[in-house]
Amino acid sequence: MGGEAEEQARAAVRALVESDLSLAERVLRGDEPINRLHMEIDRRCYGLLVNHQPSPTDVRVVVSGVKINGDLERIGDVAVNIAEATFRYLQHPPVKPLIDIPRMADHAQGMLRDALNAYVRHATDLAYDVLDRDDVLDGLKDQVFRELLRYMVQNPATTEPALELILISRHLERIGDHATNIAEEVIFMVSGCDVRHHAQEGKEAH
Amino acid sequence: MGGEAEEQARAAVRALVESDLSLAERVLRGDEPINRLHMEIDRRCYGLLVNHQPSPTDVRVVVSGVKINGDLERIGDVAVNIAEATFRYLQHPPVKPLIDIPRMADHAQGMLRDALNAYVRHATDLAYDVLDRDDVLDGLKDQVFRELLRYMVQNPATTEPALELILISRHLERIGDHATNIAEEVIFMVSGCDVRHHAQEGKEAH
Repeated sequence: MGGEAEEQARAAVRALVESDLSLAERVLRGDEPINRLHMEIDRRCYGLLVNHQPSPTDVRVVVSGVKINGDLERIGDVAVNIAEATFRYLQHPPVKPLIDIPRMADHAQGMLRDALNAYVRHATDLAYDVLDRDDVLDGLKDQVFRELLRYMVQNPATTEPALELILISRHLERIGDHATNIAEEVIFMVSGCDVRHHAQEGKEAH
Repeated sequence: MGGEAEEQARAAVRALVESDLSLAERVLRGDEPINRLHMEIDRRCYGLLVNHQPSPTDVRVVVSGVKINGDLERIGDVAVNIAEATFRYLQHPPVKPLIDIPRMADHAQGMLRDALNAYVRHATDLAYDVLDRDDVLDGLKDQVFRELLRYMVQNPATTEPALELILISRHLERIGDHATNIAEEVIFMVSGCDVRHHAQEGKEAH
């Protein structure tokens, strides 16, 4: 499921950067296997909670599985949103060479990859590292916003495609948010510390 | 938790429509109680799964609780996003009288209210009704987009505030998405049918 979500996010951004409509098309079709896995994984997690007498650790692992499954499914939806925006964007002449958006994409994908590695390896250090990287994404998003706003005001013909790029940057920010959720879940699953909402207890102990 | 999330969403939109900065300020502060409840409810759900030997129905009720809790917490975040966009929007002269955005807000809030009522009353009919109403929100969002795009192209001075309104309309769409998630969860909790991803089995039986 993690691999599928990563692949969809990567393909959606590549479709944009390389103006590859058939790849964008493939992303639209690629959501279905993710949706099937989403339902199947949930079903199995429910089975584990019902049929076994789960220990506190088991409950954490299984419920974290349910939550991470939900985040991955939404990353799949975000990839579809990016592919749809790419179709609309490519109907216009390019606004500008794409620099910060691929940078945002690399950063968000790196966060997702490390959050999934942290999950597989139960590596809380790597999960904390992912949490620390969300601010960079917010900074890039603001930079993209300000730059594209300038284009729109100076040349109203760029308004529509520039708007699509702004929306794409918001989608990439959401991939980072989901990676952050996954990292927080890994920390909880492994250590039992709930570090969400900047609850500092767990983080200080780290 | 549901009441707090509803109230935050309502206050954020009222702050925008009534240009009420102190109300927007209150929304920013109002996220903290939601975050605390989010952690507390999760903690109790884990306790229920560990300390009792849960039946299949119990597991569904408790895991649905965890998921709905997550959706409500994110609605709280969306309300904060709307309040932040309101601060930025109100630094500019108004682009136009706000008509479709309050309409979107009413629609999204109605979906959320009914999803929560469906949860409390275990009313799957009402939950299915919520699912049917998401398309209206998408239509309104597209309408808002096209109209504001026209303003931006015709008068570039409106670009920045119009952009904020477009982002606010996306936030309202997300409240509808979360209401939809909650409604799907209610159907699963009550009937055991997973109707997500347009899985039609449950819906046809309905």
